[in-house]
Amino acid sequence: MRVAATGTSMDAPPRRLRADARRNYERILNAARSEVAAYGAQASLEEIARKAGVGSATLHRHFSSRHVLLEAVFSDRVRELCELPEETTVKADPAGALVEWLRAVASFVVTTRGLAESLLGGLQTHSATTDASCYQLVSAAGAGLLERAQRSDAIRPDVTIDDLMTIVNSLSLASSDGEADRRTVDRLLRIALEGIGPVSEPQ
Amino acid sequence: MRVAATGTSMDAPPRRLRADARRNYERILNAARSEVAAYGAQASLEEIARKAGVGSATLHRHFSSRHVLLEAVFSDRVRELCELPEETTVKADPAGALVEWLRAVASFVVTTRGLAESLLGGLQTHSATTDASCYQLVSAAGAGLLERAQRSDAIRPDVTIDDLMTIVNSLSLASSDGEADRRTVDRLLRIALEGIGPVSEPQ
Repeated sequence: MRVAATGTSMDAPPRRLRADARRNYERILNAARSEVAAYGAQASLEEIARKAGVGSATLHRHFSSRHVLLEAVFSDRVRELCELPEETTVKADPAGALVEWLRAVASFVVTTRGLAESLLGGLQTHSATTDASCYQLVSAAGAGLLERAQRSDAIRPDVTIDDLMTIVNSLSLASSDGEADRRTVDRLLRIALEGIGPVSEPQ
Repeated sequence: MRVAATGTSMDAPPRRLRADARRNYERILNAARSEVAAYGAQASLEEIARKAGVGSATLHRHFSSRHVLLEAVFSDRVRELCELPEETTVKADPAGALVEWLRAVASFVVTTRGLAESLLGGLQTHSATTDASCYQLVSAAGAGLLERAQRSDAIRPDVTIDDLMTIVNSLSLASSDGEADRRTVDRLLRIALEGIGPVSEPQ
């Protein structure tokens, strides 16, 4: 069995594309991202092409199957989460940077729900981020954020990145779907990160 | 169709029993409770009888079927959660009483996992406490606790009992099973209730 030597799913777009082809690729990916957020893995390819302003043939030239397109959306979002921790933000407010990142992970889990299952087939996975390799990529990015925040005493020392990922994952799977759901999850996550004690006065 | 006028599933034991029969009933219920906590709805009836120190015939005289026994275990635990909020504890430390109660709810969800599904059959329920009537009973008990804690400014005012029940439920479903799981859920719940900020000095 031959294994392709180039183009892991984390590198997108996988090939050098001419400027207009690249624009189309990005447009399709963006359209797919918002349709998948709204409708999950069953999002309409026709609607994605329409929103991207391209024909079905163009969509299929860039993404030969639903699976390839879903994988690109998923990888794109994972890469975003891995790149989100910016050194500058972290230095200014390490706890705030960690919280923002955890909220982005929650949004990722809510909006890609069903995508990991769809991509991974038989794997018994409860959510996007429970896929081992994806989980490792994302949590390694978060571990750095957490470590810096703990080093500056902004976050309690006994919390691990696995604790935080489990809390984010669990709350993200709390409700059903849609925009209201996204807001609910974000609200619950903020409560869980801040705790239920009396809100302290801003210093 | 005649509807029985007495003995809702919330009143246990359902009939007046002689002292020794009552003792057997309680023994079987306690044994069932610990076996169900360990093995879920598939717990062995033979093992329950053995642990209770009664014969299978006695078990079947008190609980005519697995369903009846599971229902009794479930109702018993729900009643416990509803009775747990004690006015005295609440007055002394309303926030502590709320936290203790939420931890008991989490333990209930973890240890009765699968029981609600088994009892409710077709209902699309993710956990014991998502059964509507059970949820209402338990959350009404918690709402009183929360209200008192918020009135004494021990708990932030923007948190609702539904927020707390959702957080407890979600975290309770985070991991798989067993005793380690119970401790993990309890640990995550405490983090979520306390928040991830620096641990404040005891006053």
